[in-house]
Amino acid sequence: MPTQDCWELEETAIPSVSEGEILIENHYVSLDPAMRGWMNDAKSYIEPIGLGDVMRAGSIGKVIKSNGHPMFKVGDVLTGVGGVQQYVATNGKGFFNVDTSVLPMTKYLAALGMPGMTAYFGILEVGKIKEGDVVFVSGAAGAVGSIVGQIAKIKGCTVVGTAGGKEKCDYVVNELGFDACFNYKEENIYTALKQHCPKGIDVYFDNVGGEILDAALAFLRKKARVVICGAISQYNSTKVKGPDNYLSLLINRASMEGMIVFDYADRYQEAGIQMGLWMMEGKLKTEEDVYNGIENFYPTFQRLFTGEKRGKLVLKVKEDE
Amino acid sequence: MPTQDCWELEETAIPSVSEGEILIENHYVSLDPAMRGWMNDAKSYIEPIGLGDVMRAGSIGKVIKSNGHPMFKVGDVLTGVGGVQQYVATNGKGFFNVDTSVLPMTKYLAALGMPGMTAYFGILEVGKIKEGDVVFVSGAAGAVGSIVGQIAKIKGCTVVGTAGGKEKCDYVVNELGFDACFNYKEENIYTALKQHCPKGIDVYFDNVGGEILDAALAFLRKKARVVICGAISQYNSTKVKGPDNYLSLLINRASMEGMIVFDYADRYQEAGIQMGLWMMEGKLKTEEDVYNGIENFYPTFQRLFTGEKRGKLVLKVKEDE
Repeated sequence: MPTQDCWELEETAIPSVSEGEILIENHYVSLDPAMRGWMNDAKSYIEPIGLGDVMRAGSIGKVIKSNGHPMFKVGDVLTGVGGVQQYVATNGKGFFNVDTSVLPMTKYLAALGMPGMTAYFGILEVGKIKEGDVVFVSGAAGAVGSIVGQIAKIKGCTVVGTAGGKEKCDYVVNELGFDACFNYKEENIYTALKQHCPKGIDVYFDNVGGEILDAALAFLRKKARVVICGAISQYNSTKVKGPDNYLSLLINRASMEGMIVFDYADRYQEAGIQMGLWMMEGKLKTEEDVYNGIENFYPTFQRLFTGEKRGKLVLKVKEDE
Repeated sequence: MPTQDCWELEETAIPSVSEGEILIENHYVSLDPAMRGWMNDAKSYIEPIGLGDVMRAGSIGKVIKSNGHPMFKVGDVLTGVGGVQQYVATNGKGFFNVDTSVLPMTKYLAALGMPGMTAYFGILEVGKIKEGDVVFVSGAAGAVGSIVGQIAKIKGCTVVGTAGGKEKCDYVVNELGFDACFNYKEENIYTALKQHCPKGIDVYFDNVGGEILDAALAFLRKKARVVICGAISQYNSTKVKGPDNYLSLLINRASMEGMIVFDYADRYQEAGIQMGLWMMEGKLKTEEDVYNGIENFYPTFQRLFTGEKRGKLVLKVKEDE
């Protein structure tokens, strides 16, 4: 678990804007488990964050200055990887214009942002769900898991979730429409899976790793798919614990596949339109848990690992006027 | 590791042949790692062998009696799951007629039997190899691994193997044409993989599990495929050790998939024709390590786990005339 001294709050002048650049005032910063991985000095799917760099993070904000930018103008709302900071001077690469008259800013960091895209492509393209499948989702009340389960319900699956706490489980069943959700902190995982997935699991969407992954493997059905999206239980371990039940893949001719949402960047628009429609139809709900103040980055970030949050964790970095 | 007292050598009368049945005299019995799994009292892809049952095994033999069987006649050579015994009375279900004028009997337990079919469908259908792929194979001198590597060479891949012992490695490179093979008992697996797969691994065909699986995961390339065919290093463990490096699947958007050859039964003929052609063209070589005498079942079976054998392990059960 990173300690507070991994970060420093630095106050500097608002950056100047070179020719062809814009200045974005960030309103909200997205806090995601993936950020923990970006801090490791190791070969991965993306360069690690360098010492002294601004902490990398998704963000959304408003253009407040343009020095002749060819596409973006003052007043545009842009989302991209703007980092944990209040102002970004950029040539705009990797930023997208969004329409906040349809949905509020925070939704663009949730269902229409990285977690939503991860859920969409993860469950449809990697999980390959089909009607009637039994889908099990860990981190069911989280930013990604909550959307995964709702998409699976839309597609006609039976959906069972697990989350840490009774309140979260109630939310997942009563508000999001999962068929069942159990509290892994109180219940025996094997007993709960036996009860809620009596015929076994066709697709397991894994956000957590560890014991829950191992238990899910023990309940796989023939030709099941395990989507490895994250492993929050392992991110702060110096030694990752592998799934001892992996031979269930052999016995059941099942597969376990990793995914990184960035691979689907050229299809974000397609997914965004579909997700937006589902939201307007009331079939897809998301909740953002918004904390306030850039100075509160560290205690808010910790909630990713303590689980003290519900839905998408967001930090408001724009100061109130 | 099963002890000798798991089996008993029983002498009984040659079984009588009911109407519609045949009597096969087994010549050879196939010894395969899968047999160990069949001995566990656990839910699997096939019923466990019952206490008191004949030990299940692939076999090949000659029909010596027919009581009006509609398809098979005396003199036919049949292969199927005949068990570790000298005579089988059967209605013929699951047995196939083979032509021993083309290839000797033992080849039908190797390249044209279960190991060959496993290699063929495993590397082509699950591994989905394509020209230029870097393929890594464990158990490279074994019945399955030796064929996997040769098929990958035929398909234009770079093939690296690992085996237990210098002699086996030399055989794999010099006789079977692998690009390289290292001795995991002497060399550091990570160092060897770094040396022989400098660009990483596209397909890892796993027959062993354990440390070698973990090391292979660390070298996966983007979109790599891991074929879980077996885990001989784990079969006699009371507690299987999972692959701690499984998050390499996530980072590399890679997949790990299990396979059971029986799923491809309706395509054995297609594979058999192709493998037979490759053998006749001299592109595919197999070696059978034949031991003699049904009374030597146990010490021969042990060789599956000690590695004291090369290629396909076969037990000759027909007594010399």
